[in-house]
This record gives sequence, structure tokens and C-alpha cells, in this order.
Amino acid sequence: MLKRRTDLAVEARELTRQGAGATELEGVRAREETREGYPVTRVEVLNETGAKALGKPVGTYITLDLAALARREEDAFPRAARALAAELGLLCKDVPPSAPVLVVGLGNRAITPDAIGPGAADHTLVTRHLVERAPEHFGSFRPVAALAAGVLGTTGVESGELAGAVAEKVRPACVIAVDALASRSLHRVCTTVQLSDTGIVPGSGVGNHRYALDRETLGVPVIAVGVPTVVDGATLALDILEEAGRTDLDPAALRGIGGDLMVTPRDIDQRVKDMAKVIGYGIDLALHPGLTLEDVELFLS
Amino acid sequence: MLKRRTDLAVEARELTRQGAGATELEGVRAREETREGYPVTRVEVLNETGAKALGKPVGTYITLDLAALARREEDAFPRAARALAAELGLLCKDVPPSAPVLVVGLGNRAITPDAIGPGAADHTLVTRHLVERAPEHFGSFRPVAALAAGVLGTTGVESGELAGAVAEKVRPACVIAVDALASRSLHRVCTTVQLSDTGIVPGSGVGNHRYALDRETLGVPVIAVGVPTVVDGATLALDILEEAGRTDLDPAALRGIGGDLMVTPRDIDQRVKDMAKVIGYGIDLALHPGLTLEDVELFLS
Amino acid sequence: MLKRRTDLAVEARELTRQGAGATELEGVRAREETREGYPVTRVEVLNETGAKALGKPVGTYITLDLAALARREEDAFPRAARALAAELGLLCKDVPPSAPVLVVGLGNRAITPDAIGPGAADHTLVTRHLVERAPEHFGSFRPVAALAAGVLGTTGVESGELAGAVAEKVRPACVIAVDALASRSLHRVCTTVQLSDTGIVPGSGVGNHRYALDRETLGVPVIAVGVPTVVDGATLALDILEEAGRTDLDPAALRGIGGDLMVTPRDIDQRVKDMAKVIGYGIDLALHPGLTLEDVELFLS
Amino acid sequence: MLKRRTDLAVEARELTRQGAGATELEGVRAREETREGYPVTRVEVLNETGAKALGKPVGTYITLDLAALARREEDAFPRAARALAAELGLLCKDVPPSAPVLVVGLGNRAITPDAIGPGAADHTLVTRHLVERAPEHFGSFRPVAALAAGVLGTTGVESGELAGAVAEKVRPACVIAVDALASRSLHRVCTTVQLSDTGIVPGSGVGNHRYALDRETLGVPVIAVGVPTVVDGATLALDILEEAGRTDLDPAALRGIGGDLMVTPRDIDQRVKDMAKVIGYGIDLALHPGLTLEDVELFLS
Repeated sequence: MLKRRTDLAVEARELTRQGAGATELEGVRAREETREGYPVTRVEVLNETGAKALGKPVGTYITLDLAALARREEDAFPRAARALAAELGLLCKDVPPSAPVLVVGLGNRAITPDAIGPGAADHTLVTRHLVERAPEHFGSFRPVAALAAGVLGTTGVESGELAGAVAEKVRPACVIAVDALASRSLHRVCTTVQLSDTGIVPGSGVGNHRYALDRETLGVPVIAVGVPTVVDGATLALDILEEAGRTDLDPAALRGIGGDLMVTPRDIDQRVKDMAKVIGYGIDLALHPGLTLEDVELFLS
Repeated sequence: MLKRRTDLAVEARELTRQGAGATELEGVRAREETREGYPVTRVEVLNETGAKALGKPVGTYITLDLAALARREEDAFPRAARALAAELGLLCKDVPPSAPVLVVGLGNRAITPDAIGPGAADHTLVTRHLVERAPEHFGSFRPVAALAAGVLGTTGVESGELAGAVAEKVRPACVIAVDALASRSLHRVCTTVQLSDTGIVPGSGVGNHRYALDRETLGVPVIAVGVPTVVDGATLALDILEEAGRTDLDPAALRGIGGDLMVTPRDIDQRVKDMAKVIGYGIDLALHPGLTLEDVELFLS
Repeated sequence: MLKRRTDLAVEARELTRQGAGATELEGVRAREETREGYPVTRVEVLNETGAKALGKPVGTYITLDLAALARREEDAFPRAARALAAELGLLCKDVPPSAPVLVVGLGNRAITPDAIGPGAADHTLVTRHLVERAPEHFGSFRPVAALAAGVLGTTGVESGELAGAVAEKVRPACVIAVDALASRSLHRVCTTVQLSDTGIVPGSGVGNHRYALDRETLGVPVIAVGVPTVVDGATLALDILEEAGRTDLDPAALRGIGGDLMVTPRDIDQRVKDMAKVIGYGIDLALHPGLTLEDVELFLS
Repeated sequence: MLKRRTDLAVEARELTRQGAGATELEGVRAREETREGYPVTRVEVLNETGAKALGKPVGTYITLDLAALARREEDAFPRAARALAAELGLLCKDVPPSAPVLVVGLGNRAITPDAIGPGAADHTLVTRHLVERAPEHFGSFRPVAALAAGVLGTTGVESGELAGAVAEKVRPACVIAVDALASRSLHRVCTTVQLSDTGIVPGSGVGNHRYALDRETLGVPVIAVGVPTVVDGATLALDILEEAGRTDLDPAALRGIGGDLMVTPRDIDQRVKDMAKVIGYGIDLALHPGLTLEDVELFLS
């Protein structure tokens, strides 16, 4: 069957529950709340039963709905950065305050919907070299290193390999990996951020990574931060047909349509920039809790 | 009814003929041939009857199918540039060889599918200032000026107004305006170039220009060069439904789907770069018939 | 003699007074004060005697020393933008509050030290199209248009011609032209902004414009905003020799050294970005006095 | 004393011989020839005596004078790429034809004169992933990986550390490291390429790397490819004073002048692009001897 591809746990849950009569899935727990005015959904995959049901590894998946940011409401940016920082802080709560962290921006800077990761790395406040070389001034900072991992076609090195190589040098207590995701829902594109403590799974993301970036491969916890930036043509086709009441259709007939197409909002270039910035700033506030947004702005500009 | 939007005469003709039982439309003449190995379709709208039938002004519309370029076949680039130059040469055949020409790149450089025009302007060999200031060396060149017209949101000036203002200074014998188009067919996206002698029509293009760029507004012939780079969501929805046999559907139900979406090939960034370059080089060869592709490469790099 | 090239009135005055025993020049009046913590020097060329002495047209030249901005002191950016806005406001005081203004960014975006003008245009809040099309929302705004004039080599059209052509369409009550300048003093490079009501003079700027942009050519007052971004090699050579006590030297011997060289700070890329942004924001605050810096940030980001 | 900083062995030799009465230095051998029309100087530092005299490690230093490229003479580009490829081929002659190679582009893409390395990496034909995944098509290619190492301020990781980390994964038989250099001679800026088999020495380059990239740190031979892109202010000052006959001067007086300045050609942006491209193509031809320049162009564009 034509698969609706999604990297979002919140969507996987919706899809699975549709079949299950909307009762909660076994081994899955979900909770909705609000943070800085933004809706937050927390999906916990508790055990292998839940993992199998959702097709996602055991762990916590937090989804922030930042649609207000895309509408450029007032204060939307600082609220979103603080909300992200707070949720990241919870996921990293076992990482000691002065332990080194490595931020990895996955994806291809030259392809608009895949540029979330490198963009977030650009907005990351990098301090590792300062802490090492000028401890008298920066000794109180957490050492943070950042890496825009590039893409296979321009490096010949899988981004997972590269991140692993750098992690061996930097020896971080935690890795934060930022990536563009695929969604099955148009309204989530460039409005949603998913945080999880499960790392990056092979085959996920816009670029379809082949290797995992997780505790097993890197030896330390890996927080994944993802933003859906595209819907594939096949998903759109299924949505349209469903809305049109053609659930009886042989999806094989559609197979050719979605293959090499992507569906994005018209203002994708601006939206990707906005989301990369909010993620970068959210990471900065989470990793350096003593700094304000104005401090980060000053350091980065 | 949900309209399938197209800026391509060749598509308008296909759509209209479907209703008309595939006989040729009155007031329209079409011919297919091959140039440098690329399929060329020449649609002539002969009179107001044809104009009304196609929804396109009286004039000549030439479509080159450059799909081989996207497949990066050998020699595809020089053949495409020469084919474009030959067809442009035919459309400009009444412009004297040393008369000044103004090339206008329409669209927004910061939005990938709208960047065809500015990209083509970047590859235009500009000579007007050389001819004026160093006539002893460049006196044999045609004076060519180029303008990337920017977009309303960043200038506050409609690109039609701007082009008109510059045309008043440069006083060209002909204007060539390059723009991104909308298509209704996915397989034409970034593979097709349309040349026409009718100028740019209000409401056409990806950016939906509000003013015409044509002989009436600029006082000189205006050759339009366009490349479809997106299909809108509504068009895709209609295509999918048609393939699924649901021609009975109320399209009103779909209206929300396509509005602010665009559908592009996954490698749109690279394809737009390639098409902008081939158009720029084609214009250069057409306007300076004494130069080879290697000469152009040397001047521009 | 080897000429020390300067576009800054404040430097022309220093150089001339050195010869004149440091008394004030006839026909020139100068005053120093402070604005938002930044030193401001106001040089008025009162008549033709003063103009001849300084080699600058009759008019007012205001120099802001923004060295604190380069040192990234706290609040340096908002204070600099407000200081610029206040001084621009004084120079534009005869322009009615709702009269249209055209901002012209001169220079070549692709050449770092020449990119001040296009960069400032990028940070200009453009409203002309909004005022025209949505007067119910934007009717209270001043109509502002902006133009990055490009450069001769890529357009074939002199930037003066282009600005003139657009001014004929936009019919502004005032033009603000931003450009990179040459200085003779290394410590002024990227730290100083000169504002003047005399427009742009032929042969000035990094790009050496050939046509004037002034009240005579454009028919309306032209405020020039300039930042020195380079010192030429010959100027540096003269400075070094002077410091070494070799004022007796035949400068002809040095002629070959400075010709095609430029001397810049090592961090020129970042500094040009910073100065372009502060100028753009200063213009925005001056032209829309009801807006705060936060408003501008929100509109432009 | 004020040091004239140079990373070029050919300049170190000139400077040292001036003191030594222009006889050849002990432990140093030099030879001049021509390759593809370009002057080539081969300086061999034979032993520790020579190393001490020149201040350069024992090894071979090849300098190509590509001034004709900057003048854009016909065929200059293909000739330069082939000349570079031939000389690189000699330096790599002990690396087996199908052994993996890692190309490292050092320097900061955002700073024009430091962007040679990243630019060359962009033009490197990367094949490692193709050889691994599609050996049926690419099995005859040498596996090549490429890395633009970024800079400390944006990664927190020293480029030497990063290159070392990647080399441990890729296990190349040879590393080619491309970097911008400092020169003491204005006419060598952006016209000269130095190849050497000694790797990158700490403190060299425009960015002043702190760690070595050489056989000792990486465990494999390291070919360094460098282009001087700047002269520092102090060097220019010394040159000017020498030409003015003031060799008696106390250089301490000049110390303040050159510190944070750089002297570059006016067209540095274009020249850096040209040199990065010729180096990238030269590397491609050297590492894949079966390919022509046209093949490389086709793969990379």
C-alpha cells in the first residue's frame, strides 16, 4: 500500500488511533498542555508494545505547535524560543550544567526545505573554544560545539559518521541533532517542532539518513529536534482522495505521482529561516540558562 | 469551478481541444518540429477568435521541451542554449543587429521557484556601457542592458513600472522579459521554456504581476521567456482526482487545499539554476551572433 | 603629487587646516557635539570660498563616530540607529511627514567593501505599495520605495541613470542615497557615517560614480549617507612615510604601489554588515517617526 | 624586529638569500621550469640545515605562478588546472591509484580572503559514497571525501581536530589540505599556488591554525595546497619604507599600523573564486586521471 510517511509521533498516534477507534494505544501515554501560550503535546512510548503500535522507538516525543510564529504575532518569537528552551531543558535534565554539548545540524543548506539543521547550527552559541582558551572569562559557560554536517553528495561522508567522528573528539555529555522532517499533514509543515530523546532514526528526515544518531551509536543521549518542512506528493494525493471520499481506490495507480515531488507552503524560504532561528535560540537558552534572549542576540549578530 | 491555472499556450491549447474533440481551434495554428534535438511546438494565435479560445493574446508562442537538460545528458547544455538562441533570433528578426536591447529578469531571487528571471539576468552579457565608453574596442557589439527587477515587497515599485522607467532611459529596440510561470502539468515544471512575442500579461507568472510589460506599455516589442517552476496545489488535486476517475466531484470541496501550497520537483534549487543559465546563455548567443558559447563563458565567469 | 583621496568633509577640513595653521577656514563652520553618546561633527560649507577650500559643495556634512558599535558595546546598536535617525531627521526637516521618499543603495553587493548601499536598502522598510493598495491599513504611513542600484558592469546602466529613471516614476519629495566611501584615515574605516544634504558627487565613493545624484539631476533634495570602508594603498603609503618622517620623498616612486590595492580591517565582512543594518534602521526610524526599533525589527525579519 | 610574515617557501628563500649574498643556501635546492606555460619553482628543503635556514620543514615546495589566470588569458583556466594536476600527481605519486583520499578545505567561507579552502572543497568531485554504494557503476573510481572544516568561532572545534576526526573514519591514504596563506609580496597575492608535501604548520595560513595537519598528527601524508590572498599591513609598511630607502627605521614605531589590517587586490572576491575553482579542478584531475576537464564540469555543475 502507499504509505503515508510521517516522522512525527503525534501523527503516527493519530493515524494508529483512527484504526483503533480513538482509544489510547497500549504502551502509549499522551498529554496536552500549554507552554508560553503554545500548545504542547507530550507522547510517551512506554514499552515495546507502544513502540510497535506507533512505529517509533521507546521514548518521549514533545510537539510544540508554533503556528502563531508563522502568523508573526507579537512576542511570538521570544515566547517560542523560551518554550523550546523549557522543553529542551526537561529532556536534558540529567545532563550536568557545565557538561559539554554537541549540536549537530543535519541536512543540506542548498535545498530550502532541508536547510533547517544547518540554519539552527548557525544560530547556536558556540563556546567550547572560549572555555578552553580563556577560562578566566568563560569558565562559567558550558562548552558547546556545533557542526553543520553537510550532506553525503558534497562530502562523501554520511552525516552520522561525521557526527560520530566529532563526538569522539568533543566527548559531549549529550548531542542535540536538528533535522528537517517529513509530515503527513499540510498544516503541520513549518509550524510544528518535535523534540525527542530517542535520537535520529535511519530513513527519517527529508534527506533520509541511513545511519542512526542515537545513544547506541554515539554513546551519549541524543536529543532530536525536528521540523516538518515538506509533505510528499503521495501523501497529498491520499489526503485529497480521502476528502473526496475515494477510500476505495487502488493506491498503486497513484504511485507515479508523488515520487519525486514535494509540496511546500509558498513562503517556505522565509518559514525555514524563522524556524531555524527559533530552534537555535531555544537551544542557546536551554544550554546557557543564565543568558537572556538579548544576550544571545548580541553574541550572535 | 476550480480553475487549472496555466501560463503556457501549449497547455491552454491542449485543455481547450479536449473539450473541442481534438480538432484544431479556429484562429489557432500549431506545428511541431525539432531544434538541436529538442522538441519545439509553435502555437500561433492568429486572430481574436483564437485569442478568445485560448485565453492568450494574438501572437506566436514557442515551447521548447528541454527535459534532456534535466537528465544532464551530454551536450544537453550547449544544444539547449543554441536552440533557444535560434528561436529567440526568429522572434527578434525585425530588430536591427546593432540596436540596443534591454533584458528584464522578473521575480524574487530569494524564493527558489521565482528566481528564474534574476538568475537569467545574472548570465546576461551586458555591453551597453562598454559600447558607449570604449567604442574603439566594443563598437561592433550590440548594446545590451540588463535589469533584475526585484519585487514589490522589497522595492515598493511594481516591476512593470521599474522596467518602464529603465526602458525610457535605455530606449531599447526590443525588451526581453524572463519570468517564472505556472503550469498545470507536473512534467513540464523546469523542463519547458516558452518564448512569445506578446510580452508579459497581468496576473501571469509565479509572482502574479499586476501590470503588463508589452508593446503597448513599453512602446517596443517585448519578447517573453518563461519557465514553469511550480504547479499549484489545486491543479495537482484536480489531476489526481481525474486519474482516479472522480470527474464528478464538487471542486468546491477542494478549494482550501491548494491555495497557499506549491508543488515542485525535489531538486528544484538545482533545476532553477540550470534553467536560468541556459536562458541567459541563449539570450547572449541570440543578441551577439558572432560569439560562441566559450566566448560567453569567458566573459561571464 | 600623490593625492590622498577622501570623500569625508571632516577629513578634507583636517587636511586643509594642517596647511592653514589649524585656524578655521573661511567659509567653513564646524561644531562638535554628542548624540546618544556618539561624537558628532557638523561641518558647514557656507559659500563658494569654503567649497573651494575643502573641495566639497556648499552644504552640511554631519559625521557620526560609531567606533563603539564596532566594539559591540551594549546598547550600541539601538543608540546608533537613533542617533542616525535624529540627524537624518534634521537634514530632512523640510520634507513633509507623509511625502514619498526614495532610498537608493549604491554599490556592488558582490564586493564586500562596496556592499554598504545594497545592504542598507535590504534593511529599508518599504511601504509605497502598501500605502497605495491598502490605504485603509497603511494610509498613515509615509510611502517609501527602495532601490539597490546594482553596478554598471552587471546592468550596463549607470546607477545615476537608474536612480533618475525610478525617481521620475516614484516622484519622491526627497532621495536618500547610501554609498561606500573612501577615507584617508584607517581608524575611520567602518566606524564613521557621513550624512550630507549635497547628494552624491561624480568620482566619489568606492565605485567612483560618473554621474551626480543631486538636486540638479533628480529635481529634489538628495541626502547622501556614506561609510568609508577602504583606504587605498597610496594613502596608507603616505601615512606610513609621514609617521616615519619621510615627508621629503618623491611620491612618484610610490605610484605603482597603491593603484589596485585596498586596505581594510580584517573583519570587514562583519563590519560592513553591521553598518548597513544600522543605516537601514536609522533611515526607517527617521522616515517613520511613529515606529520603534522593535517595530522595524518585526516588519523586516 | 617586525617580522615579514610569509607562508611561501619561495619567498622565505628569497629573503634568506638576500642576506646570504644570493648564493644557494646549504641544505636547499631550487629549480625553475615551465608547466603548461606557467612558471614553476621547485624548492627542496633537503635537511635540518636547510629547514633552519628557511624556517620551513624538510620537504618539497612547488610554486606555480598563475598570473596569466588573473589576466583571464584564453585557455588560462584549463592550462592552470592541468598544470596543478600534474604537480599534485608528482607529490602524490606514492599513493596507489584506487586508495581513498580526503580533501580538507580550511578557512572561513564568510571572510573573502579566507574562503579559498571551502571554495576548493565545493569544486571537489566527491566519490566515496558512490564507490561504496554503487560499486557496479563507480567501482573504478578512487574514493574521495571532502570536508570544509569551518572555523573555530562557528564550531568550537579546531579545524585540525575536525580533520583528524574525519580522517579516523575515512582512513585515507593521503590528505590534501587547501588553505589561504599570507605572503609578503603584493604581486603574489591571488596569483600563486604553493603545493608541498609537508602538511599545514601551526600558525600558518590566514586563519593562523593552532594545530598541525601533517603526517605526524594524521598518520598519512598530507599535501598542502595554499594561495596567498592577503598581505598584512606591517609587511606593506616595510616594503614601502624599503622602497623609500628607510631601512634604518625603528620598526617598533610601525607596530600599531599593520596589526588588524589586511591589504588585498580590489577584485579579491572574483580572484578568490577563480583560484578556488582552479584548485578544485586541479585536484579532481589529479585524483581521477581518467577524467577530462569537461567530465569534471559535467559532474560538478
